[in-house]
Amino acid sequence: MMQLKVIGVGAGDPDHVTIQAVKALNQVDVFFVLDKGEVKQELVDLRGEILQRFAPNLEYRVVVGQDPERDRASAAYVESVDDWRRRRADVCADLIAAELGEDQVGAFLVWGDPSLYDSTLAILDDILDRGELAFEIEVIPGISSVSALAARHRVGLNQVGRPIQITTGRRLAEKWPDDVDDVVVMLDAQTAFTAHTDQDAEIYWGAYLGTPDELLVAGKLSDVAAEITELRAEARNRKGWIMDTYLLRRNRR
Amino acid sequence: MMQLKVIGVGAGDPDHVTIQAVKALNQVDVFFVLDKGEVKQELVDLRGEILQRFAPNLEYRVVVGQDPERDRASAAYVESVDDWRRRRADVCADLIAAELGEDQVGAFLVWGDPSLYDSTLAILDDILDRGELAFEIEVIPGISSVSALAARHRVGLNQVGRPIQITTGRRLAEKWPDDVDDVVVMLDAQTAFTAHTDQDAEIYWGAYLGTPDELLVAGKLSDVAAEITELRAEARNRKGWIMDTYLLRRNRR
Ligand SMILES: C[S@@+](CC[C@H](N)C(=O)[O-])C[C@H]1O[C@@H](n2cnc3c(N)ncnc32)[C@H](O)[C@@H]1O
Ligand SMILES: C[S@@+](CC[C@H](N)C(=O)[O-])C[C@H]1O[C@@H](n2cnc3c(N)ncnc32)[C@H](O)[C@@H]1O
Repeated sequence: MMQLKVIGVGAGDPDHVTIQAVKALNQVDVFFVLDKGEVKQELVDLRGEILQRFAPNLEYRVVVGQDPERDRASAAYVESVDDWRRRRADVCADLIAAELGEDQVGAFLVWGDPSLYDSTLAILDDILDRGELAFEIEVIPGISSVSALAARHRVGLNQVGRPIQITTGRRLAEKWPDDVDDVVVMLDAQTAFTAHTDQDAEIYWGAYLGTPDELLVAGKLSDVAAEITELRAEARNRKGWIMDTYLLRRNRR
Repeated sequence: MMQLKVIGVGAGDPDHVTIQAVKALNQVDVFFVLDKGEVKQELVDLRGEILQRFAPNLEYRVVVGQDPERDRASAAYVESVDDWRRRRADVCADLIAAELGEDQVGAFLVWGDPSLYDSTLAILDDILDRGELAFEIEVIPGISSVSALAARHRVGLNQVGRPIQITTGRRLAEKWPDDVDDVVVMLDAQTAFTAHTDQDAEIYWGAYLGTPDELLVAGKLSDVAAEITELRAEARNRKGWIMDTYLLRRNRR
C-alpha cells in the first residue's frame, strides 16, 4: 500500500522540527509540493534547509504540482475555498498516481501544525473518498505558530480555568467572540484588532515567528494598535509578504 | 543573571521533543520538579527517559520541591487555583534561591506545550513580581496534547474559515460554547461530553496520547459516548490515573 505522511515542520525555525519528524523525513521517497506561484522564496529555502539538515543522506525526489488559482474575489468564502480544495485534490491525485510507486512513501511538509488552518488533510480525504487511489495516511504533529507566539512572548494562552478561541481575522473583524476573553487570531490580512481598541485588552503580536525577521510587539491594545499596523505595513512592503498571528487578552470585568 | 528555561517536551511520546528542546536541555544545570505526591511513576520515568536519550552526557542536578496541597473541595475554583499557585510560587522561589547559582541555568520540563493550561509561567511571573529574585525566562514550545490528538485521528481542528474553542470539561458541562462548532476539551474529569449527546456531532477522543497505553475512539457522539465512558473508567481503574482530551465537531446546520 502507498503511504503518505503529512509532516508538521514547525512555524519557521528549523529547530522546531521534532525527533518524530526527523525520523519520518528520512523514510520519504517523494516529497509533494504545490507551487503557489506567489510562493515565497524564503519558505522554499527553509524547506530545503530542513531537508538538508535533518535528512542529509536521503535520496528523494521532489515533485511539484501547479496550485490552481483561487477565486479571491468571490464573496462566498467557504464555497470558493471548497471549490479550490477540490481542484487542488485533482492536481494532487494526478501527482500521486503518476509519481508514487506501490510500496513507496510520499510526504507533504506542512508549516506549523497540520491540524491548524491547513488544507492538506482535507485534500487527502477528498482523494480517498473518490475511491480511485488507496493509501495510508500518517500525521506528524508540529509546533504551531500559536505555540511559537506564546513561547516568544512567554505567556500562557488561557487564564485559569478559562477557554481560548482560535479564529480568523475575517471573523474577528465582525465581532469579538462571545464568552471568551482570550482570542488567538490567524489569517488576518486586515489588522482586525483595530476594530477592538475600545476593549480593555492586551495584544501579543508576532510576525515571521521563528525566522531571522521575527517581529514582536506586546502591550495594551489601544496603546500599540497603531504601532503594529504601521510596523506590519512597513514589513510587508519591504519583504513582499507577511505572516502574523496574535493573542488578544481581555481583562475580566 | 540566572536563567530559567520552561521547556515543552511534548504530550507523552519522547519523539515529540524538538531539536530546540534538545539544545535547551543540554544547557541546564538544575532541573526543578514539584513532587505532586499523587505523581504518576510513568511520568517520572518518561522524564528520565527524555533526559537520558537527549542529554546523555549532561551533568545536572534534579531538585524536588514539595507541591502544596490544593483545596479541591472549594467551590471557588479560580480563587482556590490562585491561592494554590501562590503557595507553589513560594516553594519555587525558595528552591531557586537556594539551588541556582548566579550564572546557572535552571529548567522546568512541561508536558505538552507550556502555553496550554500549565501554571509554570504564571508561577515564575509571580516570583518576578515580588522583586526578590531576578532571572531571565526562555520558553521552548512543545507539541501539545491537542496537536497530538488531531494527528492521531488525522483530522484538522477547524472547519474551513471557522473558529476553534479550547475549553475545560467543567465549562463544557455547563453549556456548548456559543458560535463555535469545533470544541477541544481538556481537564475533563467528568466526561462532560455526555451532556451533549443530543447534538449532531462527532467526537475524536484520545487518552494517554503518545504513550504505549494510548486509546483512541472516534465516531458519532451519540453512538460512542457510552463506549468512551466505559473505556475511560476501566482504564482509569486499571492504571490509577488518566489524561484524556477530545475534539467535538458539530455538523453545521
Ligand atoms: C494557512 S495558516 C497555517 C497555520 C499553520 N498550520 C500553523 O500551525 O501555524 C497560515 C497562518 O498561520 C499564521 N502563521 C504561520 N506561520 C507563522 C509565522 N512564522 N509567524 C506568524 N504567523 C504565522 C499566520 O496567521 C498565517 O496567516
Ligand atoms: C494541566 S493540562 C496540561 C496540558 C499540556 N500543557 C498540553 O499542552 O497538552 C492537562 C490536560 O492535558 C490533556 N493531556 C495532557 N497530556 C495528555 C495525553 N498524553 N493524552 C491525552 N490528554 C492529555 C488532558 O486533557 C489533561 O487533563
